[in-house]
Amino acid sequence: MTDQAPLKRPLPHFKPLEGVLFGTAQTNSRYKNRDDLLLVLFDKPASVGGVLTSNQCAGIPVIWCRQRLSSKNVSAQALLVNAGNANVLTGEQGQQAAIETARKISELFKISNEKIFLGSTGVIGEIFPTQHVLNGIEKAKKNLLPNAWEKAVSAIMTTDTFPKGAVRSAFIGNTKVTIQGFVKGSGMIAPNMATMLAYIFTDANLSSPLLQESMKEACEESFNAITVDSDTSTSDMALAFALNTAQNPTPKNIEDPLFQDFRQKIKEITKELALLVLRDGEGVTRLMKVNVMNAPSVKVAKKIAFSIANSPLVKTAIAGGDPNWGRIAMAIGKAGIPVEMQKVRISLCGIPVAENDTYLDYDEKNLAQKMQSEEIEILVSLQDGKECTEVWGCDLTKSYIEINASYRS
Amino acid sequence: MTDQAPLKRPLPHFKPLEGVLFGTAQTNSRYKNRDDLLLVLFDKPASVGGVLTSNQCAGIPVIWCRQRLSSKNVSAQALLVNAGNANVLTGEQGQQAAIETARKISELFKISNEKIFLGSTGVIGEIFPTQHVLNGIEKAKKNLLPNAWEKAVSAIMTTDTFPKGAVRSAFIGNTKVTIQGFVKGSGMIAPNMATMLAYIFTDANLSSPLLQESMKEACEESFNAITVDSDTSTSDMALAFALNTAQNPTPKNIEDPLFQDFRQKIKEITKELALLVLRDGEGVTRLMKVNVMNAPSVKVAKKIAFSIANSPLVKTAIAGGDPNWGRIAMAIGKAGIPVEMQKVRISLCGIPVAENDTYLDYDEKNLAQKMQSEEIEILVSLQDGKECTEVWGCDLTKSYIEINASYRS
Repeated sequence: MTDQAPLKRPLPHFKPLEGVLFGTAQTNSRYKNRDDLLLVLFDKPASVGGVLTSNQCAGIPVIWCRQRLSSKNVSAQALLVNAGNANVLTGEQGQQAAIETARKISELFKISNEKIFLGSTGVIGEIFPTQHVLNGIEKAKKNLLPNAWEKAVSAIMTTDTFPKGAVRSAFIGNTKVTIQGFVKGSGMIAPNMATMLAYIFTDANLSSPLLQESMKEACEESFNAITVDSDTSTSDMALAFALNTAQNPTPKNIEDPLFQDFRQKIKEITKELALLVLRDGEGVTRLMKVNVMNAPSVKVAKKIAFSIANSPLVKTAIAGGDPNWGRIAMAIGKAGIPVEMQKVRISLCGIPVAENDTYLDYDEKNLAQKMQSEEIEILVSLQDGKECTEVWGCDLTKSYIEINASYRS
Repeated sequence: MTDQAPLKRPLPHFKPLEGVLFGTAQTNSRYKNRDDLLLVLFDKPASVGGVLTSNQCAGIPVIWCRQRLSSKNVSAQALLVNAGNANVLTGEQGQQAAIETARKISELFKISNEKIFLGSTGVIGEIFPTQHVLNGIEKAKKNLLPNAWEKAVSAIMTTDTFPKGAVRSAFIGNTKVTIQGFVKGSGMIAPNMATMLAYIFTDANLSSPLLQESMKEACEESFNAITVDSDTSTSDMALAFALNTAQNPTPKNIEDPLFQDFRQKIKEITKELALLVLRDGEGVTRLMKVNVMNAPSVKVAKKIAFSIANSPLVKTAIAGGDPNWGRIAMAIGKAGIPVEMQKVRISLCGIPVAENDTYLDYDEKNLAQKMQSEEIEILVSLQDGKECTEVWGCDLTKSYIEINASYRS
């Protein structure tokens, strides 16, 4: 159904991490002949922090994780993720499903319910296949393996066309730690988390509150700064788990000098994973990087940047390689924010095209050629302040329609 | 380039109206072998009222009309509309173009500048073809005709695939008057006016302020309640002209009992024209009617309704005839408004599909069949107030991409 993504990137070489096992299984519910269930087990309670969807119609697993993350002494010993059914608007039956699957894990591995995290992705409003998933947990238990990263990420894919991961090292004091993770998602991607499940693992020894604060900061500039189609999923989550196996000194807080390298690297990881999601955006052939500068506030900058990145007319122009920057001006003007257009400067692919309320004399042929690139850069300077933002979007192609117009895709 | 619109409607039979002449011409600028300039002349100053785009990057003709409409003693004697160049972000040159074309009309017909209205639709940020338009005005002068309604609407089309018009009669007291008009537009259509030019004419004897108030009210429920692609044009306008030739008694204000039939009919006309624009929406094969009921405010209802009507995933599902109502729930949840999902009821094509936070037991086959209709009805009841709204959207198909991804479409 889906074309191979032209912007595909290979999966990186994950480093071995101790203290975590991955089991996968076929539940034989929505998908056939492929693993669609992932069970992650931690040898000892891992610190955990993360960000969940802002959609008001949040899935049952999202509410489940929110409850756990809000607890003061949160830690994780297991994570269960299924692909194919989102467990959203499933009422009593879906809540029962969450309780029963967690109970199964609790019984099999002697883990307390509060330390079990759940994630689901797939169709909304369909009966959750509880029995299939319960059987799947038993199967997954039989093939638990260390470092089965590729199997893990493959098991949670839905409309994804390639598995997506990122790896970094960071120093905490003199201790070198690993941070790595994977992500699934390619549609319903918009700010504030989209059908996107991201899981990041590190051997670092870090508290849950610090991990939480760091993830929140990192997600703002990564997962919350990308958009495929302006739609925000009911099921998104980005969780980071610290296995606490490294012997690093303990950073006191996010500003602790000890923590700065890790802090930077987790930003890099989330950014890389977010851009991989965009690269696998449904039907995407080109990325769009939108920088809004000299804005009165970050909020204004982000609103204008997303108005551009989400505009169907801008997106289709980019798909067609058409330097139709008038549509960028239109998108700035429709953002719902008072803008003094005579101050605004617009550049496309590094070429200034408009300022002082008028078009500039630029080389159309040269610009048209640059529009054939894989990444299209849009720069808007409002000349009305000092704040800026960067968001990433993508083009809108016929393949997006093909993927999403089919019955219960 | 564009397929014939499957939801096309024939042009109605316009009634003869005295006191207004239409001239059209080929400017031979962007379009070849077709009229792309419309000149409308009123025998005596017509009352005028209307609504203009809310886009902050408004076109020069929009600013021009805004200045005139804001004057206390506004009236109109001429209207000039060109298709192909929007006269947006054209700076000095574009302003000069407006001044020169108006001066030409002023000289040829002895009309004062303040009584001349301008409209433009087409590409943004390209040199305005002033000389071509000036020559076009001379040509148009030579073929001025009464009641050349079809020629008039055809001359201002851009990506439209069929001409669009609507006709009503209304009583003011015992006097029967005619209200009729036409509209162009099929893309960049979103609330608060999109690349949509609508012109309505009536023989009624009405003041400009009354016409203004009535149009403002009518547009809120018509042109500002439709969306093709969430993009708001820089050039939109809906203007109504009263020729004041009828012998009707003069309504004092919008609440005057004398005015109620006219008030209703102008709502009908704007609604009909707005839906015609949707029917000619780029690539549209199905309409979507979204009613949000029992909301705490009209603002909340509209925000949720447009979140649904603009969601690419809802739109593609409708294109595919897929009753994927989970995406409707997603769109409710992402509207940026706190919603108690457990109270929300969702119906699709008259069939309740979800309430009390869960899916309902409905006949999927029956629903799938209803999804093949030309009009898809979505009903959302928030159970959280007494306000409601109705907005209209459309599906998102591959043809939309085809039309908009081509070079400078």
